[in-house]
Amino acid sequence: MNLEGLRVMGIDPGLTRCGLSVVQAGRGRQIIPVAVGVVRTPSTAELSERLLRISRAVGEWMDDYKPDVVAMERIFERGNVSTVMHTAHAVGVMVLAAAERDIPVHMYTPSEVKKAISGNGRADKKQMTAMITRILGLSEAPKPADAADALAIAVCHCWRAPLIARTNQLTAKAAAQ
Amino acid sequence: MNLEGLRVMGIDPGLTRCGLSVVQAGRGRQIIPVAVGVVRTPSTAELSERLLRISRAVGEWMDDYKPDVVAMERIFERGNVSTVMHTAHAVGVMVLAAAERDIPVHMYTPSEVKKAISGNGRADKKQMTAMITRILGLSEAPKPADAADALAIAVCHCWRAPLIARTNQLTAKAAAQ
Repeated sequence: MNLEGLRVMGIDPGLTRCGLSVVQAGRGRQIIPVAVGVVRTPSTAELSERLLRISRAVGEWMDDYKPDVVAMERIFERGNVSTVMHTAHAVGVMVLAAAERDIPVHMYTPSEVKKAISGNGRADKKQMTAMITRILGLSEAPKPADAADALAIAVCHCWRAPLIARTNQLTAKAAAQ
Repeated sequence: MNLEGLRVMGIDPGLTRCGLSVVQAGRGRQIIPVAVGVVRTPSTAELSERLLRISRAVGEWMDDYKPDVVAMERIFERGNVSTVMHTAHAVGVMVLAAAERDIPVHMYTPSEVKKAISGNGRADKKQMTAMITRILGLSEAPKPADAADALAIAVCHCWRAPLIARTNQLTAKAAAQ
Protein backbone atom coordinates (compact mmCIF):
# COMPACT_ATOMS: atom_id res chain seq x y z
CA MET A 1 0.00 0.00 0.00
CA ASN A 2 1.86 3.12 -1.20
CA LEU A 3 0.54 6.35 0.29
CA GLU A 4 3.41 8.60 -0.82
CA GLY A 5 2.13 12.12 -1.31
CA LEU A 6 -0.85 11.70 1.04
CA ARG A 7 -1.55 15.07 2.63
CA VAL A 8 -2.90 14.96 6.17
CA MET A 9 -4.26 17.86 8.22
CA GLY A 10 -3.90 17.25 11.96
CA ILE A 11 -6.20 19.00 14.43
CA ASP A 12 -5.83 19.20 18.20
CA PRO A 13 -9.33 20.58 18.87
CA GLY A 14 -10.18 23.35 21.30
CA LEU A 15 -12.24 26.54 21.42
CA THR A 16 -9.67 28.75 23.15
CA ARG A 17 -6.66 27.23 21.38
CA CYS A 18 -6.85 24.87 18.45
CA GLY A 19 -3.66 23.31 17.06
CA LEU A 20 -3.51 22.85 13.27
CA SER A 21 -0.93 21.12 11.13
CA VAL A 22 -0.41 19.78 7.63
CA VAL A 23 2.08 17.04 6.77
CA GLN A 24 2.77 14.98 3.68
CA ALA A 25 3.70 11.31 3.56
CA GLY A 26 7.05 10.66 1.86
CA ARG A 27 8.78 7.35 1.06
CA GLY A 28 8.38 4.59 3.61
CA ARG A 29 7.86 6.15 7.02
CA GLN A 30 9.25 9.52 5.99
CA ILE A 31 7.00 12.52 6.68
CA ILE A 32 7.42 16.07 5.42
CA PRO A 33 6.06 18.95 7.53
CA VAL A 34 4.06 21.45 5.48
CA ALA A 35 2.47 23.86 7.97
CA VAL A 36 1.78 24.24 11.66
CA GLY A 37 -0.11 26.85 13.67
CA VAL A 38 -2.59 27.63 16.39
CA VAL A 39 -5.97 29.34 16.11
CA ARG A 40 -7.05 31.18 19.23
CA THR A 41 -10.40 32.72 20.14
CA PRO A 42 -10.89 35.06 23.10
CA SER A 43 -12.80 33.49 26.00
CA THR A 44 -14.57 36.84 26.48
CA ALA A 45 -16.24 36.60 23.04
CA GLU A 46 -19.68 35.03 22.47
CA LEU A 47 -19.82 31.33 21.57
CA SER A 48 -21.25 32.19 18.10
CA GLU A 49 -18.38 34.55 17.36
CA ARG A 50 -15.79 32.02 18.53
CA LEU A 51 -17.24 29.17 16.46
CA LEU A 52 -17.41 31.45 13.42
CA ARG A 53 -13.72 32.30 13.80
CA ILE A 54 -12.71 28.65 14.20
CA SER A 55 -14.83 27.63 11.23
CA ARG A 56 -13.32 30.31 8.99
CA ALA A 57 -9.73 29.65 10.05
CA VAL A 58 -10.02 25.88 9.60
CA GLY A 59 -11.85 26.34 6.29
CA GLU A 60 -9.05 28.61 5.03
CA TRP A 61 -6.41 26.02 5.99
CA MET A 62 -8.38 23.34 4.13
CA ASP A 63 -8.74 25.54 1.05
CA ASP A 64 -5.08 26.61 1.11
CA TYR A 65 -3.44 23.25 1.82
CA LYS A 66 -6.05 20.91 0.27
CA PRO A 67 -5.50 17.93 2.61
CA ASP A 68 -6.68 14.48 1.44
CA VAL A 69 -7.81 13.64 4.94
CA VAL A 70 -8.26 15.23 8.37
CA ALA A 71 -7.01 13.51 11.54
CA MET A 72 -8.42 14.81 14.80
CA GLU A 73 -7.96 14.01 18.46
CA ARG A 74 -11.03 12.30 19.89
CA ILE A 75 -12.24 14.20 22.93
CA PHE A 76 -13.19 12.64 26.22
CA GLU A 77 -15.71 13.57 28.83
CA ARG A 78 -12.98 13.89 31.43
CA GLY A 79 -12.01 17.22 32.94
CA ASN A 80 -13.94 20.48 33.25
CA VAL A 81 -17.44 19.94 31.84
CA SER A 82 -17.79 23.40 30.35
CA THR A 83 -14.40 23.08 28.59
CA VAL A 84 -15.35 19.64 27.22
CA MET A 85 -18.65 21.03 25.89
CA HIS A 86 -16.87 23.97 24.27
CA THR A 87 -14.38 21.63 22.65
CA ALA A 88 -17.24 19.39 21.45
CA HIS A 89 -18.93 22.42 19.83
CA ALA A 90 -15.64 23.29 18.09
CA VAL A 91 -15.21 19.67 16.92
CA GLY A 92 -18.70 19.78 15.38
CA VAL A 93 -17.82 22.92 13.46
CA MET A 94 -14.49 21.50 12.23
CA VAL A 95 -15.94 18.14 11.19
CA LEU A 96 -18.57 20.13 9.27
CA ALA A 97 -15.86 22.18 7.52
CA ALA A 98 -14.26 18.92 6.35
CA ALA A 99 -17.62 17.41 5.30
CA GLU A 100 -18.48 20.50 3.25
CA ARG A 101 -15.24 19.94 1.32
CA ASP A 102 -15.69 16.18 1.03
CA ILE A 103 -12.61 15.51 3.14
CA PRO A 104 -12.85 12.35 5.28
CA VAL A 105 -12.20 12.69 9.02
CA HIS A 106 -10.46 10.12 11.26
CA MET A 107 -10.41 10.38 15.05
CA TYR A 108 -7.66 9.06 17.31
CA THR A 109 -7.53 8.89 21.09
CA PRO A 110 -4.58 10.60 22.80
CA SER A 111 -3.09 7.21 23.71
CA GLU A 112 -3.36 5.95 20.10
CA VAL A 113 -1.42 9.04 19.01
CA LYS A 114 1.20 8.59 21.74
CA LYS A 115 1.61 4.92 20.94
CA ALA A 116 2.00 5.56 17.19
CA ILE A 117 4.63 8.28 17.70
CA SER A 118 6.65 7.04 20.66
CA GLY A 119 5.66 3.38 21.02
CA ASN A 120 4.31 4.26 24.47
CA GLY A 121 0.62 5.12 25.03
CA ARG A 122 1.57 7.03 28.18
CA ALA A 123 4.43 9.13 26.83
CA ASP A 124 4.63 12.62 28.38
CA LYS A 125 4.58 15.95 26.54
CA LYS A 126 8.38 16.27 26.59
CA GLN A 127 8.93 12.84 25.05
CA MET A 128 6.25 13.47 22.43
CA THR A 129 7.72 16.83 21.43
CA ALA A 130 11.23 15.32 21.17
CA MET A 131 9.92 12.46 18.97
CA ILE A 132 7.93 14.78 16.68
CA THR A 133 10.93 17.12 16.29
CA ARG A 134 13.09 14.14 15.28
CA ILE A 135 10.52 12.43 13.02
CA LEU A 136 9.93 15.61 11.04
CA GLY A 137 13.61 16.57 11.00
CA LEU A 138 12.91 19.98 12.52
CA SER A 139 15.81 22.12 13.72
CA GLU A 140 13.91 23.04 16.88
CA ALA A 141 10.82 21.85 18.78
CA PRO A 142 7.48 23.09 17.40
CA LYS A 143 5.75 25.59 19.68
CA PRO A 144 3.31 26.00 21.38
CA ALA A 145 2.33 22.57 22.74
CA ASP A 146 -0.95 22.52 20.74
CA ALA A 147 1.03 22.85 17.52
CA ALA A 148 3.22 19.86 18.44
CA ASP A 149 0.09 17.86 19.30
CA ALA A 150 -1.49 18.71 15.95
CA LEU A 151 1.66 17.47 14.17
CA ALA A 152 1.67 14.24 16.23
CA ILE A 153 -1.97 13.53 15.26
CA ALA A 154 -1.18 14.04 11.56
CA VAL A 155 1.91 11.79 11.74
CA CYS A 156 -0.13 9.17 13.60
CA HIS A 157 -2.61 9.09 10.72
CA CYS A 158 0.15 8.84 8.08
CA TRP A 159 1.48 5.73 9.78
CA ARG A 160 -1.94 4.22 10.45
CA ALA A 161 -3.38 5.02 7.02
CA PRO A 162 -1.74 2.07 5.15
CA LEU A 163 -3.26 -0.32 7.72
CA ILE A 164 -6.68 1.35 7.46
CA ALA A 165 -6.53 1.18 3.64
CA ARG A 166 -5.48 -2.49 3.73
CA THR A 167 -8.30 -3.35 6.16
CA ASN A 168 -10.83 -1.56 3.94
CA GLN A 169 -9.55 -3.48 0.90
CA LEU A 170 -9.85 -6.81 2.70
CA THR A 171 -13.33 -5.95 3.96
CA ALA A 172 -14.43 -4.97 0.45
CA LYS A 173 -12.91 -8.19 -0.96
CA ALA A 174 -14.66 -10.34 1.66
CA ALA A 175 -17.97 -8.57 0.97
CA ALA A 176 -17.58 -9.18 -2.78
CA GLN A 177 -17.02 -12.91 -2.35
CA MET B 1 -40.91 47.14 25.50
CA ASN B 2 -42.99 46.14 22.47
CA LEU B 3 -41.69 43.08 20.67
CA GLU B 4 -44.73 42.48 18.45
CA GLY B 5 -43.64 40.77 15.24
CA LEU B 6 -40.46 39.29 16.74
CA ARG B 7 -39.77 36.02 14.96
CA VAL B 8 -38.13 33.32 17.05
CA MET B 9 -36.70 30.02 15.87
CA GLY B 10 -36.74 27.37 18.62
CA ILE B 11 -34.31 24.45 18.53
CA ASP B 12 -34.40 21.30 20.64
CA PRO B 13 -30.91 20.08 19.69
CA GLY B 14 -29.97 16.50 18.85
CA LEU B 15 -28.05 14.59 16.22
CA THR B 16 -30.56 11.77 15.70
CA ARG B 17 -33.63 13.99 16.10
CA CYS B 18 -33.57 17.75 16.20
CA GLY B 19 -36.80 19.66 16.84
CA LEU B 20 -37.23 22.94 14.96
CA SER B 21 -39.91 25.59 15.27
CA VAL B 22 -40.66 29.16 14.29
CA VAL B 23 -43.12 31.39 16.15
CA GLN B 24 -43.95 35.07 15.99
CA ALA B 25 -44.78 37.34 18.92
CA GLY B 26 -48.22 38.94 18.70
CA ARG B 27 -49.90 41.49 20.97
CA GLY B 28 -49.19 41.13 24.67
CA ARG B 29 -48.45 37.52 25.44
CA GLN B 30 -50.06 36.24 22.22
CA ILE B 31 -47.85 33.98 20.08
CA ILE B 32 -48.50 32.83 16.52
CA PRO B 33 -47.10 29.46 15.39
CA VAL B 34 -45.36 29.68 12.00
CA ALA B 35 -43.67 26.31 11.46
CA VAL B 36 -42.70 23.18 13.30
CA GLY B 37 -40.75 20.09 12.27
CA VAL B 38 -38.09 17.54 13.09
CA VAL B 39 -34.81 16.88 11.29
CA ARG B 40 -33.56 13.32 11.60
CA THR B 41 -30.22 11.82 10.67
CA PRO B 42 -29.59 8.06 10.54
CA SER B 43 -27.41 6.77 13.37
CA THR B 44 -25.74 4.44 10.85
CA ALA B 45 -24.34 7.39 8.86
CA GLU B 46 -20.90 8.91 9.50
CA LEU B 47 -20.67 11.87 11.89
CA SER B 48 -19.55 14.18 9.02
CA GLU B 49 -22.56 13.23 6.93
CA ARG B 50 -24.95 13.73 9.86
CA LEU B 51 -23.56 17.15 10.77
CA LEU B 52 -23.71 18.21 7.13
CA ARG B 53 -27.40 17.25 6.96
CA ILE B 54 -28.23 19.09 10.20
CA SER B 55 -26.31 22.16 9.06
CA ARG B 56 -28.09 22.28 5.71
CA ALA B 57 -31.56 21.69 7.15
CA VAL B 58 -31.16 24.32 9.85
CA GLY B 59 -29.62 26.75 7.36
CA GLU B 60 -32.58 26.30 5.02
CA TRP B 61 -35.04 26.98 7.86
CA MET B 62 -33.12 30.14 8.74
CA ASP B 63 -33.09 31.30 5.12
CA ASP B 64 -36.77 30.46 4.57
CA TYR B 65 -38.22 31.85 7.80
CA LYS B 66 -35.66 34.58 8.54
CA PRO B 67 -35.91 34.49 12.36
CA ASP B 68 -34.72 37.54 14.32
CA VAL B 69 -33.29 35.30 17.00
CA VAL B 70 -32.63 31.63 17.75
CA ALA B 71 -33.54 30.09 21.11
CA MET B 72 -31.92 26.76 21.91
CA GLU B 73 -32.07 24.31 24.77
CA ARG B 74 -28.84 24.31 26.77
CA ILE B 75 -27.45 20.79 26.97
CA PHE B 76 -26.18 19.14 30.11
CA GLU B 77 -23.47 16.63 30.73
CA ARG B 78 -25.99 14.22 32.27
CA GLY B 79 -26.99 11.00 30.56
CA ASN B 80 -25.18 8.85 28.01
CA VAL B 81 -21.78 10.45 27.32
CA SER B 82 -21.70 9.57 23.63
CA THR B 83 -25.20 11.04 23.11
CA VAL B 84 -24.22 14.22 24.95
CA MET B 85 -21.09 14.58 22.79
CA HIS B 86 -23.11 14.04 19.61
CA THR B 87 -25.63 16.64 20.71
CA ALA B 88 -22.78 19.05 21.56
CA HIS B 89 -21.34 18.60 18.04
CA ALA B 90 -24.79 19.33 16.56
CA VAL B 91 -25.16 22.43 18.79
CA GLY B 92 -21.81 23.73 17.52
CA VAL B 93 -22.97 23.34 13.92
CA MET B 94 -26.33 25.05 14.58
CA VAL B 95 -24.83 27.95 16.53
CA LEU B 96 -22.44 28.38 13.58
CA ALA B 97 -25.36 28.43 11.11
CA ALA B 98 -26.92 31.26 13.15
CA ALA B 99 -23.61 33.14 13.46
CA GLU B 100 -23.02 32.94 9.69
CA ARG B 101 -26.38 34.69 9.24
CA ASP B 102 -25.81 37.21 12.03
CA ILE B 103 -28.71 35.80 14.05
CA PRO B 104 -28.18 36.01 17.83
CA VAL B 105 -28.54 32.80 19.86
CA HIS B 106 -30.00 32.50 23.36
CA MET B 107 -29.76 29.32 25.44
CA TYR B 108 -32.28 28.19 28.06
CA THR B 109 -32.09 25.28 30.47
CA PRO B 110 -34.95 22.75 30.35
CA SER B 111 -36.24 24.00 33.71
CA GLU B 112 -36.22 27.63 32.55
CA VAL B 113 -38.36 26.57 29.58
CA LYS B 114 -40.74 24.55 31.76
CA LYS B 115 -41.07 27.38 34.26
CA ALA B 116 -41.79 29.98 31.55
CA ILE B 117 -44.45 27.83 29.88
CA SER B 118 -46.18 26.12 32.79
CA GLY B 119 -45.03 28.06 35.85
CA ASN B 120 -43.44 24.84 37.10
CA GLY B 121 -39.76 24.04 36.45
CA ARG B 122 -40.51 20.34 36.87
CA ALA B 123 -43.56 20.04 34.62
CA ASP B 124 -43.75 16.69 32.80
CA LYS B 125 -43.97 16.15 29.02
CA LYS B 126 -47.76 15.77 29.10
CA GLN B 127 -48.32 19.04 30.98
CA MET B 128 -45.89 20.86 28.68
CA THR B 129 -47.54 19.58 25.53
CA ALA B 130 -51.00 20.55 26.84
CA MET B 131 -49.78 24.08 27.71
CA ILE B 132 -48.08 24.59 24.34
CA THR B 133 -51.16 23.38 22.47
CA ARG B 134 -53.29 25.89 24.42
CA ILE B 135 -50.85 28.82 24.23
CA LEU B 136 -50.54 28.51 20.44
CA GLY B 137 -54.27 27.83 19.94
CA LEU B 138 -53.56 24.59 18.09
CA SER B 139 -56.43 22.21 17.33
CA GLU B 140 -54.30 19.23 18.33
CA ALA B 141 -51.03 18.55 20.17
CA PRO B 142 -47.86 19.04 18.10
CA LYS B 143 -46.04 15.79 17.35
CA PRO B 144 -43.50 14.30 17.85
CA ALA B 145 -42.28 15.33 21.31
CA ASP B 146 -39.18 17.07 19.90
CA ALA B 147 -41.43 19.36 17.86
CA ALA B 148 -43.43 20.33 20.96
CA ASP B 149 -40.15 20.98 22.83
CA ALA B 150 -38.88 23.21 20.02
CA LEU B 151 -42.13 25.24 20.20
CA ALA B 152 -41.83 25.53 23.99
CA ILE B 153 -38.27 26.89 23.71
CA ALA B 154 -39.37 29.50 21.15
CA VAL B 155 -42.35 30.58 23.29
CA CYS B 156 -40.07 30.76 26.34
CA HIS B 157 -37.83 33.21 24.48
CA CYS B 158 -40.79 35.36 23.33
CA TRP B 159 -41.85 35.83 26.92
CA ARG B 160 -38.34 36.34 28.26
CA ALA B 161 -37.21 38.66 25.45
CA PRO B 162 -38.88 41.85 26.81
CA LEU B 163 -37.07 41.31 30.13
CA ILE B 164 -33.74 40.66 28.37
CA ALA B 165 -34.19 43.78 26.22
CA ARG B 166 -35.09 45.88 29.27
CA THR B 167 -32.05 44.59 31.18
CA ASN B 168 -29.77 45.38 28.23
CA GLN B 169 -31.22 48.92 28.04
CA LEU B 170 -30.66 49.51 31.73
CA THR B 171 -27.12 48.12 31.51
CA ALA B 172 -26.34 50.37 28.55
CA LYS B 173 -27.88 53.37 30.38
CA ALA B 174 -25.82 52.65 33.51
CA ALA B 175 -22.65 52.29 31.44
CA ALA B 176 -23.33 55.63 29.71
CA GLN B 177 -23.71 57.52 32.98
